[in-house]
Amino acid sequence: MNNNFYAVIMAGGGGTRLWPLSRVNRPKQMIRLGSDRSLYQITCDRLAGLFTPDRILVVTVAEQAVELQKQVPEIPVENYLLEPMPRGTASVVGLAAAVLHKRDPQAVMAVLTADHFIENIPYFQKLLRVAAEVARKNMLVTLGITPTHPSTAYGYIQRGVILETIDGQAVYSVRRFKEKPTAAAAQKMMADEDHDWNSGMFIWQVSDILAEFDHLMPELAQSLREIGLAWDTPEQNQVVGALWPSIKPQTIDYGIMERAQRVAVLPAAGLGWNDVGSWDSLFEVLPLDSSGNIQLNDLNVIIDTQNSLILSDGTNRLVATIGVDDLVIIDTKDVLLVCRRSDSQKVKDAVQRLKETGQTRYL
Amino acid sequence: MNNNFYAVIMAGGGGTRLWPLSRVNRPKQMIRLGSDRSLYQITCDRLAGLFTPDRILVVTVAEQAVELQKQVPEIPVENYLLEPMPRGTASVVGLAAAVLHKRDPQAVMAVLTADHFIENIPYFQKLLRVAAEVARKNMLVTLGITPTHPSTAYGYIQRGVILETIDGQAVYSVRRFKEKPTAAAAQKMMADEDHDWNSGMFIWQVSDILAEFDHLMPELAQSLREIGLAWDTPEQNQVVGALWPSIKPQTIDYGIMERAQRVAVLPAAGLGWNDVGSWDSLFEVLPLDSSGNIQLNDLNVIIDTQNSLILSDGTNRLVATIGVDDLVIIDTKDVLLVCRRSDSQKVKDAVQRLKETGQTRYL
Repeated sequence: MNNNFYAVIMAGGGGTRLWPLSRVNRPKQMIRLGSDRSLYQITCDRLAGLFTPDRILVVTVAEQAVELQKQVPEIPVENYLLEPMPRGTASVVGLAAAVLHKRDPQAVMAVLTADHFIENIPYFQKLLRVAAEVARKNMLVTLGITPTHPSTAYGYIQRGVILETIDGQAVYSVRRFKEKPTAAAAQKMMADEDHDWNSGMFIWQVSDILAEFDHLMPELAQSLREIGLAWDTPEQNQVVGALWPSIKPQTIDYGIMERAQRVAVLPAAGLGWNDVGSWDSLFEVLPLDSSGNIQLNDLNVIIDTQNSLILSDGTNRLVATIGVDDLVIIDTKDVLLVCRRSDSQKVKDAVQRLKETGQTRYL
Repeated sequence: MNNNFYAVIMAGGGGTRLWPLSRVNRPKQMIRLGSDRSLYQITCDRLAGLFTPDRILVVTVAEQAVELQKQVPEIPVENYLLEPMPRGTASVVGLAAAVLHKRDPQAVMAVLTADHFIENIPYFQKLLRVAAEVARKNMLVTLGITPTHPSTAYGYIQRGVILETIDGQAVYSVRRFKEKPTAAAAQKMMADEDHDWNSGMFIWQVSDILAEFDHLMPELAQSLREIGLAWDTPEQNQVVGALWPSIKPQTIDYGIMERAQRVAVLPAAGLGWNDVGSWDSLFEVLPLDSSGNIQLNDLNVIIDTQNSLILSDGTNRLVATIGVDDLVIIDTKDVLLVCRRSDSQKVKDAVQRLKETGQTRYL
């Protein structure tokens, strides 16, 4: 079965939520957090044994491709698919599907994110195997994460009926996708126990997702068809360059998943998944010292300091904290961020302020 | 009267309470705080009109002399008196008195600190004039600061009877000097309204203070006599170098003031005096913005931030704060300090930790 199974890593994002460590020219997937491997490298590492490097595709943008290739040289250069510019996850998935369909019409693809944490790798690989088996039955499969708290930071998936159980893993139909909820709605979904977090990871046959594009996003489907025909020919760059700018930006969730039939979800409990969507989220994935602190540098003098994150990147500076609680301190060469943990989501406001004032060198 | 009046600035200290801005090789009096002039330069500036530069003496150590002379080149080089090593304020005062007595036996000297803030300069100069007039009557005069809050950071002076009033300024006898009190004792002294803070500034005739040394610190007096004889002769350095190391370290408060007769205090209210003894104290002397913040650098992005001090020195870095309250952030080239305002006094604990662990480059 696995001979036609491919991983597609979406690595073109430039998220600002881990600013100032993540930057325009060093996006989140390229940064290291408590490891000597970047999030992108760790993403590739956890595929070992399930996908050989030649069956891993990476969709990214030209500005990032060189660094990503340098970080994981095992993946063949022709497996890096470059978007001329970001056009949302629908076009990312579509491009990978079109290229894969040309190379292997029987392909099953797993759409994966490049910048998330997953702790339980054996379970992760089992989920992908089970999902591929379900996808072979013409289902669009998504991985759901059993909520551990009523988060308002994630989209949710409401389960329908149980379809089958494979190797102990339950497979459900999907009743509905839901956008990031209010706190009250999140509380209710958590209590109802019939919702999972939308992990943004999907598994399907390439032929099935292309059929969905034809049906639900016919304009994009037409562009993808032309790009597919030109791919791996001398006209590739010219055709992509001509068509891409006119693609309307859209997410795969809104464009396809929320409206497709035959959607299944595999609820995963204990996967240890985390999208590392804010500085505060690091407290869920990195080891804490006895005072609840995370210290990601050597040169600290810590006095009366609790529940705080201290990260110094490339500055070789001594960081001294005294009487500090619930703080995030990110010390980089040209920017220092001091942020209350519970205000981690407001990092984007700081980034916005810099954009508005034209201080682009700090973005 | 003022022809024999001299200022003696004690500028040899190396305080650690404003670490990491103040450092072993850049002591507190040399740093700039919200001004393009250092505390030492501001100390000299406020003497203008009362003392010509040739009547200002500076007692310091060799390591600091070059920088101090560079900062205030108007003061003649022979007015910089160098201690071979720190031996407490008693020997500092004694050295200046011995040298002055040789140069001008009629001298009245005002002992001043190099690293304090004083807001009301006309009143400060008036106090010195009145104090000199009192000193001419063979009194040892000290400037007391009317307490604005029950501080435990200062020593106190208990007033006795009123002796006279000169130009509207009351002159009191001194009943007792007291060391830094407990919180309860400070509350009581504040309520009793008969105590002033000990500012560490003294005014007396050189002949009177030398007589007190003879009486109360005869060993030091003997050394000072020999140094006085050798001063401004070819033997100066040899004599100072031979005698200084065996001087027992002592403060002028304990060595003389607490035991002397004929001590007067001039209580000063509204002088705007502050010893800048901690980062927190800057909130009393520097202008605050509408959120109670002090921002001593240009490149800030401040979101939901109150009552905090942000100081960036020589790093040219952007400092972003989000959801921050009551914090002190001191951003220097090789050290970052993040400290709760109310824990400002614990900066010395961080310094102590660095000493213990041999990280002397950060001191």
